[in-house]
Amino acid sequence: MAEVQTYPLLDRIQSPADVKRFSTAELGRLAAEIRHLLVHTVAQTGGHLAPSLGTVELTLALYSVYDFPTDKLVWDVGHQAYTHKILTGRRERFQTLRQKGGITGFPNRFESEYDAFGVGHASTAISAALGMAVARDLAGRHNQVIAVLGDGALTGGLAFEGLNNAGDLHKDITVILNDNGRSIDENVGALSEYLSCIRVAPQYNRAKHDVHAFLSGSRLGSKVLKTASRIKEGVRAALVPGDIFEEFGFRYIGPIDGHNIALMQEIFQQVRHMHGPVLVHVHTQKGRGYAPAEADPGRFHGIGKFDPETGKSAPKSGPASYTSVFSQALIDSARTLPNLVGITAAMPSGTGLKAFGQAYPERFFDVGIAEEHAVTVAAGMATDGLHPVVALYSTFAQRAYDQLLHDVCLQQLPVTLCLDRAGLVGEDGPTHHGVFDLAYLRMMPHMTVFVPKDEEELRHMLYTAVQMDSPTAIRYPRGAGLGVALTPDLHTLPVGKAEVLQEGGDIALLAVGTMVDKAQQAAQMLQARGHRCTVVNMRFVKPLDTALLRELAGSCRLLVTLEENALMGGFGSAVTEALADMALTVPVMRLGIPDTFIEQGKRDELLALCGLQPGQIAERLLAYLDKEKEA
Amino acid sequence: MAEVQTYPLLDRIQSPADVKRFSTAELGRLAAEIRHLLVHTVAQTGGHLAPSLGTVELTLALYSVYDFPTDKLVWDVGHQAYTHKILTGRRERFQTLRQKGGITGFPNRFESEYDAFGVGHASTAISAALGMAVARDLAGRHNQVIAVLGDGALTGGLAFEGLNNAGDLHKDITVILNDNGRSIDENVGALSEYLSCIRVAPQYNRAKHDVHAFLSGSRLGSKVLKTASRIKEGVRAALVPGDIFEEFGFRYIGPIDGHNIALMQEIFQQVRHMHGPVLVHVHTQKGRGYAPAEADPGRFHGIGKFDPETGKSAPKSGPASYTSVFSQALIDSARTLPNLVGITAAMPSGTGLKAFGQAYPERFFDVGIAEEHAVTVAAGMATDGLHPVVALYSTFAQRAYDQLLHDVCLQQLPVTLCLDRAGLVGEDGPTHHGVFDLAYLRMMPHMTVFVPKDEEELRHMLYTAVQMDSPTAIRYPRGAGLGVALTPDLHTLPVGKAEVLQEGGDIALLAVGTMVDKAQQAAQMLQARGHRCTVVNMRFVKPLDTALLRELAGSCRLLVTLEENALMGGFGSAVTEALADMALTVPVMRLGIPDTFIEQGKRDELLALCGLQPGQIAERLLAYLDKEKEA
Repeated sequence: MAEVQTYPLLDRIQSPADVKRFSTAELGRLAAEIRHLLVHTVAQTGGHLAPSLGTVELTLALYSVYDFPTDKLVWDVGHQAYTHKILTGRRERFQTLRQKGGITGFPNRFESEYDAFGVGHASTAISAALGMAVARDLAGRHNQVIAVLGDGALTGGLAFEGLNNAGDLHKDITVILNDNGRSIDENVGALSEYLSCIRVAPQYNRAKHDVHAFLSGSRLGSKVLKTASRIKEGVRAALVPGDIFEEFGFRYIGPIDGHNIALMQEIFQQVRHMHGPVLVHVHTQKGRGYAPAEADPGRFHGIGKFDPETGKSAPKSGPASYTSVFSQALIDSARTLPNLVGITAAMPSGTGLKAFGQAYPERFFDVGIAEEHAVTVAAGMATDGLHPVVALYSTFAQRAYDQLLHDVCLQQLPVTLCLDRAGLVGEDGPTHHGVFDLAYLRMMPHMTVFVPKDEEELRHMLYTAVQMDSPTAIRYPRGAGLGVALTPDLHTLPVGKAEVLQEGGDIALLAVGTMVDKAQQAAQMLQARGHRCTVVNMRFVKPLDTALLRELAGSCRLLVTLEENALMGGFGSAVTEALADMALTVPVMRLGIPDTFIEQGKRDELLALCGLQPGQIAERLLAYLDKEKEA
Repeated sequence: MAEVQTYPLLDRIQSPADVKRFSTAELGRLAAEIRHLLVHTVAQTGGHLAPSLGTVELTLALYSVYDFPTDKLVWDVGHQAYTHKILTGRRERFQTLRQKGGITGFPNRFESEYDAFGVGHASTAISAALGMAVARDLAGRHNQVIAVLGDGALTGGLAFEGLNNAGDLHKDITVILNDNGRSIDENVGALSEYLSCIRVAPQYNRAKHDVHAFLSGSRLGSKVLKTASRIKEGVRAALVPGDIFEEFGFRYIGPIDGHNIALMQEIFQQVRHMHGPVLVHVHTQKGRGYAPAEADPGRFHGIGKFDPETGKSAPKSGPASYTSVFSQALIDSARTLPNLVGITAAMPSGTGLKAFGQAYPERFFDVGIAEEHAVTVAAGMATDGLHPVVALYSTFAQRAYDQLLHDVCLQQLPVTLCLDRAGLVGEDGPTHHGVFDLAYLRMMPHMTVFVPKDEEELRHMLYTAVQMDSPTAIRYPRGAGLGVALTPDLHTLPVGKAEVLQEGGDIALLAVGTMVDKAQQAAQMLQARGHRCTVVNMRFVKPLDTALLRELAGSCRLLVTLEENALMGGFGSAVTEALADMALTVPVMRLGIPDTFIEQGKRDELLALCGLQPGQIAERLLAYLDKEKEA
């Protein structure tokens, strides 16, 4: 990456329409400036570098042809949209990317009128764009609607539902398949193989148009036409790829080089005059133009701070992550439990299942971006003797809510859901916070919900869950553990039994997960102020340790629930339910995530925003005690 | 339908393996006996007649070839599996179909070892079967795994996720596409058109095998082979349909006549020796063999009691259904609100949107069995000036949990979700009860949750919701309303404000939806016993009328919450949360659906099972008062 200190072309862009005034050669140089800005900004802020490096030319080509925001541009997932952000008035503040109060990492309707649809989860773009096309037509407007989605996102069922409906409604809509042959990790699935086949034969040329013209030009009787139509299909499949999309009612164009601006401009100029749904298959390289990212696009998919010159990240220090501890515990459990298998939805690295797959390749399954299927295929496995561990991010598991309820819990099948990135995830913001899982899991009959207080407890919870003959879920946070010692062996924990960490106070802090440590710290602060608290690691949100609750309700004048989860329906809610059902009327103070979507920022900042730092907890309790004294 | 009083062939079946001993001609006569039994049983019990009439021959052909339950048979949705139930030891009890304690309407693992996977929701079969194939291979077993799914179910994204993964894993698995060209109503979607094209050219013949044999027989250099492979694809598409499935990695066979037992036997005998995923496309007729069902398969999809001779149902009497009142209110609202559009997921009749579609065809969208897409396309529409009403059954809306949260609520978009069949649905049982919606909806920030006490209130809630500029949901029960008078005009209701129906008692019954009427009846019974109750129609589960709660907590010695929803996280949970947050410690008795899956039965029976009938509510309260007096 050559050093560029100035951005002369970028400086000329006051409004995205200015892009239209650049020559193709200038756009090429502009692309280089943008890449430099992307690399040097993300090196400081962290972010989704490799996906955004892959779409620089595509974005420029789109802005040079279309009239946004009158035309609508919908980015699927949205982690490839940094160039789009830089072009649309967010260059000056781009260095605030993913920081609290700064530019968000994904398109966001509250941030810019150019962000037609907020995203974060995959596979929504076709559906959203189709909705906009419907609205346009009903209003009699004539704008273009463009959805850009990756080949990874195409494996999500929602994308297919969108394709199927779009082909049916036959609205004017353009889907750009940004095909880089990858999800975050390597792509999987039959469709991925299909796209590879197309890419190795990149014969985008006039042939297709010629065939179309020739065949539609021949006027024949209706019966002959029907036969001719079948032959035409055959000829087309032989000459042009993409028939799968044509069968969905789309006109297929591609594959074309997604780094050739002039070619894309030419295509888009044609496409904008076409009617009905069109799919443009663009072949891009993830990490393009930055050698370290080209060499290792997986590492640069979402990356923290790094040295832009070398691409090297600062060596990791501090405690092992929950993910890596989980990963090792799964491998250790699998050694003695031959029926244990691991399933991930396109996140082998992120969930820590990659190492399991290396240790037990035949027991490892990456199903692609397909959380619904991940859970139902697990249910199928569980009917026949296996114990699947489905490792997902908490936020993406929301996709499989019905499958968990209908396929796993209703059938009481032994499937263990391991939810990484539960709670506040930090810089990825509201689309990615995993703050609803305790609420949506605990309402499911037969489900056991484990919440480890640290990485050591996670190990034993996993070992316990995978030996249970019923649905189980374990949720744990993003990032580093507490650095506690790990025992050599794994053991099982008594299900539904809390762990009392400190006794003797008449205020009981009942905490789950990350909040156990915060509660202990808060209790120390209160102790220093002369107030002794009972501190409990509840361990299970379901079943709740109601015996302990009853005991504490009798001996305490206040119960405080602490959770890194939505207060609506979460752990604290479970406690108030249980107390009501036992006809106990002790006051309960519920601390957790308020009923709103929490913005992006550092995890610690966001916990503070929610009043969940130890000092804040102590202050809340002191204020309560003061008020109590007054009354 | 000819009269048959006896079932001589059916009588010979002690075990499903006995089917193998019948000649093809006998199987044809057996099919007639089974049809007679189906029609005459369902005429009494109600049930999914038309789908099951369509699969009689298919089921017999499967049982005559495969060795169930060693081989695994997974029915998608499961409403077509009555013949399967009759053959597998459930004939004697078949007249208890869908009754409390009787044979369930869907495959159910707790009922029979032949029911390999429990179903009810669509599109799960490929995933479940793939899981079983994985389990088989890891265990080194050699059984067959067969999934039967309808063309309607194929439009669900989960089915595609399953296809994509199955093609990738290349397990031995057989998918039978039971194509009757319909969902419950007419089918929609590009794929549906694609299947129609295949069906009109039913050239199942040797041609395909010949082409395969010819092309794989020719041994060529690798470069030539690549070209040949493309040409082969082309030739195949011209000669044989189903290339879309082949592109997913399946071997496609079909279409074949799903009422020709001998042909299916021949095919299945071949298929069971094939390796890798195979899709057999079977063309069946919904309602086959019973003239009234053939003529109107939609009405006979799921039907109540009818006269088997004429096919006529008893004329409907009693109050209009919630569905029909909703339907008319939507049409009335649309008259003055031109931005209002209606979306259904393959349920135009069931949700009442059919009439809306007739009144406003350009504003009506049936997206097929695709709840995720239904919600995200609505979000897209809502970004651009429309106000979509998405009408789903409560239980199926579970599929769109993430889309509601991520695409609608996070963006605060004006989408109104209308959830029909909320609460206990009766005979369809646990897969279909809509008892989780209050819990999963109220945890979503920015969501307003309406629950009408009767069909009249539903109208005004709808009119209110569709004029709000934020996400809204209304949930209402299956079946007849209370028969209350409907006002000529629609008006809006104050959001978040409860309706006090009866004042003055120191026990407050706080009810939502169907439980308001039950609460009023219970209050009358208690009044007769000298206990006056306050009765409140809470109207909104979110936002809760906390001002009223505060007032009642001050004046009452007990609050009783009543809901036809899961107690875990539901309305009563919201009340205990709110009281805790206001530091109010009044006792709360929560009545609703306990934390388990509720069986099938009449709605009234199931409400009684949950203790939610007025007499039971009154008894619970009297017992509480007695106990209070003792203490």
